[in-house]
Amino acid sequence: MSSTTTAVILAAGMGTRMKSRLPKAMQRLGNRPMIWHLIETARQIVDRIVVVIGPGMDELAQQVSPHETVIQYDRLGTGHAAKIGVDILHDGRAIILYADNPLLTANTMQRLLNAHDEGHALSLLGMRPVVAGHYGRIVTRVDGQVERIVEFKDASEAERSITLCNAGMMCADVTHLKNWLNNITPENAQNEYYLTDIVALAAKQGPVSCVEGTEEELAGINSRAELAQAENRLQQRLRQNALEQGATLIDPSSIFLDPDTIIARDVVIEPNVFIGPGVTLEEGCVIRAFSHLEGCLVKKGATIGPYARLRPGTVCRENSHIGNFVELKNTDLGVGSKVNHLTYLGDTKVGKMSNIGAGSITCNYDGVFKHRTTIGNNCFIGSNSVMVAPVQIEDDAMTAAGSVITQAVPSGALAFGRARQENKAGKGRALQQALQKKKEQG
Amino acid sequence: MSSTTTAVILAAGMGTRMKSRLPKAMQRLGNRPMIWHLIETARQIVDRIVVVIGPGMDELAQQVSPHETVIQYDRLGTGHAAKIGVDILHDGRAIILYADNPLLTANTMQRLLNAHDEGHALSLLGMRPVVAGHYGRIVTRVDGQVERIVEFKDASEAERSITLCNAGMMCADVTHLKNWLNNITPENAQNEYYLTDIVALAAKQGPVSCVEGTEEELAGINSRAELAQAENRLQQRLRQNALEQGATLIDPSSIFLDPDTIIARDVVIEPNVFIGPGVTLEEGCVIRAFSHLEGCLVKKGATIGPYARLRPGTVCRENSHIGNFVELKNTDLGVGSKVNHLTYLGDTKVGKMSNIGAGSITCNYDGVFKHRTTIGNNCFIGSNSVMVAPVQIEDDAMTAAGSVITQAVPSGALAFGRARQENKAGKGRALQQALQKKKEQG
Amino acid sequence: MSSTTTAVILAAGMGTRMKSRLPKAMQRLGNRPMIWHLIETARQIVDRIVVVIGPGMDELAQQVSPHETVIQYDRLGTGHAAKIGVDILHDGRAIILYADNPLLTANTMQRLLNAHDEGHALSLLGMRPVVAGHYGRIVTRVDGQVERIVEFKDASEAERSITLCNAGMMCADVTHLKNWLNNITPENAQNEYYLTDIVALAAKQGPVSCVEGTEEELAGINSRAELAQAENRLQQRLRQNALEQGATLIDPSSIFLDPDTIIARDVVIEPNVFIGPGVTLEEGCVIRAFSHLEGCLVKKGATIGPYARLRPGTVCRENSHIGNFVELKNTDLGVGSKVNHLTYLGDTKVGKMSNIGAGSITCNYDGVFKHRTTIGNNCFIGSNSVMVAPVQIEDDAMTAAGSVITQAVPSGALAFGRARQENKAGKGRALQQALQKKKEQG
Repeated sequence: MSSTTTAVILAAGMGTRMKSRLPKAMQRLGNRPMIWHLIETARQIVDRIVVVIGPGMDELAQQVSPHETVIQYDRLGTGHAAKIGVDILHDGRAIILYADNPLLTANTMQRLLNAHDEGHALSLLGMRPVVAGHYGRIVTRVDGQVERIVEFKDASEAERSITLCNAGMMCADVTHLKNWLNNITPENAQNEYYLTDIVALAAKQGPVSCVEGTEEELAGINSRAELAQAENRLQQRLRQNALEQGATLIDPSSIFLDPDTIIARDVVIEPNVFIGPGVTLEEGCVIRAFSHLEGCLVKKGATIGPYARLRPGTVCRENSHIGNFVELKNTDLGVGSKVNHLTYLGDTKVGKMSNIGAGSITCNYDGVFKHRTTIGNNCFIGSNSVMVAPVQIEDDAMTAAGSVITQAVPSGALAFGRARQENKAGKGRALQQALQKKKEQG
Repeated sequence: MSSTTTAVILAAGMGTRMKSRLPKAMQRLGNRPMIWHLIETARQIVDRIVVVIGPGMDELAQQVSPHETVIQYDRLGTGHAAKIGVDILHDGRAIILYADNPLLTANTMQRLLNAHDEGHALSLLGMRPVVAGHYGRIVTRVDGQVERIVEFKDASEAERSITLCNAGMMCADVTHLKNWLNNITPENAQNEYYLTDIVALAAKQGPVSCVEGTEEELAGINSRAELAQAENRLQQRLRQNALEQGATLIDPSSIFLDPDTIIARDVVIEPNVFIGPGVTLEEGCVIRAFSHLEGCLVKKGATIGPYARLRPGTVCRENSHIGNFVELKNTDLGVGSKVNHLTYLGDTKVGKMSNIGAGSITCNYDGVFKHRTTIGNNCFIGSNSVMVAPVQIEDDAMTAAGSVITQAVPSGALAFGRARQENKAGKGRALQQALQKKKEQG
Repeated sequence: MSSTTTAVILAAGMGTRMKSRLPKAMQRLGNRPMIWHLIETARQIVDRIVVVIGPGMDELAQQVSPHETVIQYDRLGTGHAAKIGVDILHDGRAIILYADNPLLTANTMQRLLNAHDEGHALSLLGMRPVVAGHYGRIVTRVDGQVERIVEFKDASEAERSITLCNAGMMCADVTHLKNWLNNITPENAQNEYYLTDIVALAAKQGPVSCVEGTEEELAGINSRAELAQAENRLQQRLRQNALEQGATLIDPSSIFLDPDTIIARDVVIEPNVFIGPGVTLEEGCVIRAFSHLEGCLVKKGATIGPYARLRPGTVCRENSHIGNFVELKNTDLGVGSKVNHLTYLGDTKVGKMSNIGAGSITCNYDGVFKHRTTIGNNCFIGSNSVMVAPVQIEDDAMTAAGSVITQAVPSGALAFGRARQENKAGKGRALQQALQKKKEQG
């Protein structure tokens, strides 16, 4: 079908300025490899995604899967990379994208497509950066159509004063692209095939339009500093979105969100909170300072932190309360239950209105397997209790402080598992005096 | 008495752009509902405070109490709201304020009053924002007196070029205000009574002056983004003040202070510290990174953190030391005493020069009541001790590591409360091998 | 030898705007007294360092040691301070520096020296700050040579429009400096000897050159706000350097580095990480959010945090894993070993592939002495184990959860040190009901 739209993503670069053993497309952005973002966006717009990678980039191919990858064995320039990607296509139209433009929005991608569909032989993306610097300049005609792209080093003084710069992305019919890509040559200083060279060829065939985007979304990423800047731009988008949903972010710049974070209205997030993938925060919950959340659901009215860590698989139900230095992993904490201090619960289910004392720990790992702990409703787990899983503590049960719980505690029972206290008169003072004496004697 | 000064605060708005179930005046700023700040400032200047709220805003009325509230049942505009507030006044002068200007300073409020007292029928606040945008413009006469306020949409090109914008706050005699407010009409696009319409009426009665303030203090808060910006402005004021007191803030932008925080000279605060209400830091104390303090007093030379949480009712006396992952609640820690690692002390008094071992926990809550723990001078609490309150450990006493302390420990005694160790030869290796085998068998 | 180069650092000021009991040179910057930075830089360039301090500044003298200090007893101005420093020199050249310019780079210092060596009687440092404000202006001749420095208050309108400002640092031959410093007088408003007065004297003797630096490195520090700004500039340099080494800093502005931090490529540092002195991070290790590191070595592939604190003397070997609320002090953690939750290990050696359970604590301190804990390879330390040092746990051994380990555990053994659990039927419910009843009865 000629209506098939394919995104060809050029991702073969290592990004030498990154000084990394990873391909540039695998650098981390928004808790994921950079390529993830562009693919997520492209998926909303196109029918098929083809990623051009370099040889030996198996991790990248795996990340891209189930989308297709083709390998560019020789590094002969962007025109060559695009040709390798386009060559496996048959018809329809294609958008050429770059892996190091992860912040490109669906809206801009759609506008690029639309420009093509409105009868342009080629549409391309331009921007007007604050500092145009060494970007290629887009030379337009009186009627606004693009004439050609001139590289900075080849540009005249007048051309250098053009503020419209080439952002690199393009859209055209596959058949046209194939034709143009077959007709560009590496006769330049770098001996490379430049993708930009097809613009002049396209302009001979029909009108070429330039769709403008912002530097914020179109700036490339070539160094770790630019990667950090992109992360900052991504976070600003996510924060702005959360604010618009009706969340209070006390200090937006110290709150880190994930592209998939879901935040309801009247959620309050205090400073210095890190939210990783898979987090949903329901209305009116409060995430206190220094908390760290991944893969969890926080229900209405729950309070989390400060210094709470919620790991994947955790649900904090309505009005539950997590306090400081508490870690929950794969744990379901019931309505109104509290885990306030210095506790680790892993693979645990806690019922309603139970209280887990300070320093409680579930022993969910035996060195090989993980086991579950089940705590019922209205339970009171004494401070510093150790629950050796698998173990069940039934409704209304208690454990005495400092107990090691290795067997089930029946409903309403009180479990003890600790030694009785014995005082040795004068022994404390004597011990300290002996140590002091030893110290003084050197 | 005609000298009575009343602040009439308009606080009936929900702030729809906030997308909240709370009235705008109840949104959190500086650890408190927004309205708190304006009331604290107004209290320094005026004799009486009247807050105009909407129907059903009981939480807001409670927050405002003991100051008066009057309810605006119909939402007929700012002029209507002001009329409802002014109508209950008898004489003297009134300042009309807006709940969403919480950063207005006492100095500016006083200048507004002074302008009135210098013989102006009306004084109002203006500002020159960086982007004047859709603010109403203040049209002045050759002599500098205000002629009228023109709304942006009604303004001519020339009027739009005026940089002096209406900030909204005003001051006039109560009798005059009543008169003007009775004479404005809702004959405009919104069918609302506009408070700004009284300016033209006032100008007929006598001179109207404009007192200029800064955008920093006068910008309104209409969205969560603007709320975050206001928090940032408030924090910048608090940080600047702390620096001027002679405190070292290693990274001011990551240190959050409260309007009531008291910081002496030579206090050092490391990055990422959150200070809530009721905190006093004495000379030379050090608050290390990632600490969280509320309602506490840190005396000279004490060191707190990193990762220390001090909760209300806590006093850390001279040269005491709190280490990492330590929570103190309603606890008095004596001179030179140390609580260095992974500890929770609640409702506890510790004497001088005592050492609380890692992982120690007070069991201060039995599910219903809170109980006290008392630890004397020169005590040594062994690691992972649990103190089941109410309990007393007298001077020079020790507890053995891993003990559960349920009874008093007399002075100089050593308390044991743990089982004796027993080694089962080969059992550890056998267990791990069995588990591995099970794993391999699937 | 006439080739001796001496740095004379003026450090006698208290910096009254600091409101501190410490000399200004002792204010903290980059985890160290401010003076440390300038001395470290000067050491790379000069042969000898002389620091002019005030009386009673013993801590500063100690900090400066083994470099020389001379005391300025009377505060008669910068010219007087410089004279006291230069007077103890015999020959060669000297650079006059200020303790409150800690960010001066070796490169700029060298350029100042070079300018002197190229035949100038005096070379001095200038800058063009964004706001020239009250800085003295450098008046140059048509040939670019410096004619004199005019103080702001003495400057004509034309002179005030000069953008080149005096940064204060100078370089000249010792004999010349002595001569000039003997010929300046305190005949001015402050009755002080101004160092800047030697410029005009030098200009009579021979050409005076101005070497330009940036405000970023040359701005002085006179208040806590300026100290915070300097810390920010220092951190920006350190962060930029780490990025250029190939590290990923997710949010550079929330990551604090030390001047001696060593970071390899492909290190990932998440937001809110504090790194103090003496830290080396090897390739590919990950430092998760909210971690705090000092004096430690993190080897390849290790993962640290979130909420991990590594204290001096700690080594985390290849692929080891430190989790949340974990503190390691003077501890060597073996290849592939894990310490994942709520643990304190002090003075401990852990072998390879061992697992330390949640809540484990080493009891390394007896109130007077520190003792060592040794854990072998493939050990499994059960949750909430207490290890009372000195103690040894041999290879393949296990400890049962909640045990107190006071004796050696032989290879392959399983150590128990806990009481057996006992359930008291109905006792838990009865206790809670009794408490509730008591509560209801008030």
